[in-house]
Amino acid sequence: MARIVQKFGGTSVADIDRIKTVAQRVKKEVDAGNQVAVVLSAMAGVTNQLVTYAREVSSLHDAREFDAVVSTGEQVTAGLLALALQDKGVAARSWQGWQIPIRTDGAHGKARIMGIEIEELERRLALGEVPVVTGFQGLGPDNRITTLGRGGSDTSAVALAAALKADRCDIHTDVDGVYTTDPRIVAGARKLDKITYEEMLEMASAGAKVLQTRAVELAMKRGVRLQVLSSYGDGAGTLVVDEDEIVEKEMISGIAYDRDEAKITLVGVADRPGVAAGIFGPLAEAGINVDMIVQNVSADGKATDLTFTVAKGDLDRAVRVVEELRDALGYADLVYDPNVVKVAVIGVGMRSHAGVAQRMFQALAEKGINIQVISTSEIKVSVLIAEEYTELALRSLHAAYGFEDD
Amino acid sequence: MARIVQKFGGTSVADIDRIKTVAQRVKKEVDAGNQVAVVLSAMAGVTNQLVTYAREVSSLHDAREFDAVVSTGEQVTAGLLALALQDKGVAARSWQGWQIPIRTDGAHGKARIMGIEIEELERRLALGEVPVVTGFQGLGPDNRITTLGRGGSDTSAVALAAALKADRCDIHTDVDGVYTTDPRIVAGARKLDKITYEEMLEMASAGAKVLQTRAVELAMKRGVRLQVLSSYGDGAGTLVVDEDEIVEKEMISGIAYDRDEAKITLVGVADRPGVAAGIFGPLAEAGINVDMIVQNVSADGKATDLTFTVAKGDLDRAVRVVEELRDALGYADLVYDPNVVKVAVIGVGMRSHAGVAQRMFQALAEKGINIQVISTSEIKVSVLIAEEYTELALRSLHAAYGFEDD
Repeated sequence: MARIVQKFGGTSVADIDRIKTVAQRVKKEVDAGNQVAVVLSAMAGVTNQLVTYAREVSSLHDAREFDAVVSTGEQVTAGLLALALQDKGVAARSWQGWQIPIRTDGAHGKARIMGIEIEELERRLALGEVPVVTGFQGLGPDNRITTLGRGGSDTSAVALAAALKADRCDIHTDVDGVYTTDPRIVAGARKLDKITYEEMLEMASAGAKVLQTRAVELAMKRGVRLQVLSSYGDGAGTLVVDEDEIVEKEMISGIAYDRDEAKITLVGVADRPGVAAGIFGPLAEAGINVDMIVQNVSADGKATDLTFTVAKGDLDRAVRVVEELRDALGYADLVYDPNVVKVAVIGVGMRSHAGVAQRMFQALAEKGINIQVISTSEIKVSVLIAEEYTELALRSLHAAYGFEDD
Repeated sequence: MARIVQKFGGTSVADIDRIKTVAQRVKKEVDAGNQVAVVLSAMAGVTNQLVTYAREVSSLHDAREFDAVVSTGEQVTAGLLALALQDKGVAARSWQGWQIPIRTDGAHGKARIMGIEIEELERRLALGEVPVVTGFQGLGPDNRITTLGRGGSDTSAVALAAALKADRCDIHTDVDGVYTTDPRIVAGARKLDKITYEEMLEMASAGAKVLQTRAVELAMKRGVRLQVLSSYGDGAGTLVVDEDEIVEKEMISGIAYDRDEAKITLVGVADRPGVAAGIFGPLAEAGINVDMIVQNVSADGKATDLTFTVAKGDLDRAVRVVEELRDALGYADLVYDPNVVKVAVIGVGMRSHAGVAQRMFQALAEKGINIQVISTSEIKVSVLIAEEYTELALRSLHAAYGFEDD
């Protein structure tokens, strides 16, 4: 007998037929003798509709009211799945975040889970009942509903799995696992059986949409074995595990990309202390997240070029912020470009293999693709290139790292 | 300064524009120096959609899950109205039933309100904040959300007004008050300034849809001054008050009708004790509500005819129940007819005026309308007639009682 937390996303519960299919999948695990708790998202599109309502009704943002509104979608699906399970003879009940409660801090709209009171869930799991828990939400210190931010249901599932000391947390999605790269672009992309938390984190932050970064971080921290698998198919998915569990490490595990990048370069910035703080402080205050930052040593010791990337949707605002700083910073020119893509090769094997970056640069050069920015971490090499080369770059890199031969 | 509970129904909050209009109406009362609490229904159609989902997902009915699902509509509108009020500079917050809490018994789907903990609401009202409360729901003894049954938001509003000792409970609807009869049928129908609880109750049970019977009962019991008025217009509506408050009593206040009646007659039923119980017991067990019941004294002391009405939608089931009882009851024949309408004249003035019923019978006879069943109460005379005469009967009665002359 295993204890499993099963999480199903919005497209998996998008209509009544799919909710019934989810009930069938849950029943299968129950029939196999497992203890199962389920975490659900709202029906696909519902949360967006609620967000639109809230924005239309008021230009203000009382995040507490916003949370009260947008948390209702999961309450609907949780109740419906409990009914669907009962209909198949499986004992089940829905649990809204406040009923358990899943306690969070008071940061409405981006709350963090502080603790889950599991006593009653434990008692019911022991009796064979399936708790169906609303994802994405909890109860704040003010006794009001908080939400965890978009995609927070993955985090809810991992937190519940950690609290219940579950043997596995299955994240059911549209895809049947984590791939070496996007199979819609590279025909030879193949599913990974296992990947490490660190790699999954880098993949997620490099643009792979399969799991929320925050959920992977939490799983890593709490040692929760994650599985990414399809809501529809029957096959095994990809396990996200500790590095120890992976015996034969590939040099790299995957190639991710993120089109949601825009590049800004400050030309001729004074090369003196405090300049970076003078730029990124005001950007942070404006709520603009900066991703890649590259600054070279200056040739003459006086001025240098500073390049950074932001989300495409933030480009206009970021440019305005930086333009207002022109006098204070005294840069010579401001150049920006939304037509860029970030491509990253990721793998823990990098640590013990030389030449990983070089192979990437070589492969791109052979296709005549200019590298605009390079940034590296211990297990990742990211480059910024012109967006039009996305597909060509992915296919070239996939071949260059030998994924096609397996 | 007055303390007012304002209730808005589903069509009043059907979209974002209407929610903004509601916010404007609430603001007007606040600006006038009043303390205001608001009770809301779900957007029109939303609760029906949720009910449909629940029915589609499972043939079973776990009323607790059903309640968890169908209670979400009010949570959305309450949060949105709080945002809309804040947007207009009015301090406001939403309150879900479980947050206050509004405590109910455990009868999920048709719960009764047992008590409302008003301390925090009182504190905030005193500070000028507007509590926006989800109608239709509360918290059961099992710490789960209960619903009060369809139209329960009126009851929520009255219960809250009673708990807060409000000076008035304004029920905003599609119509601007209670009319002498249906203005869609009788052009000369006019709005009543005041009506007594008893009359309103009889009007509601006779088919006038403007207020829930249960809400009127509660208002009468707790002495809550109700006002029925339009969500859109600015004029005063109809006050529902104690009889003492109405100085000049009309003989009758209104003429109501209900098309949702079907007639069943048992011909030649044995005239002995226990027969009525033998029929209406099994009907009640089958969940079928019986409205009018008429039994005459038997001419020969042996057999009589028994006529009763049920909702049109219950007719087939009621007929089946009664047919199964044929041997036990030993009636001669069973006759039924769904094409009937109940028409009632209502007024507390009836107590002191003779000839009210006679004037009704006369007016109908003059138009050649046959009366099938008559039933009376202290302040009401109801008759059952063929449905095709509905409009003709209403217009004739409206003229006969002198409403047209005012």
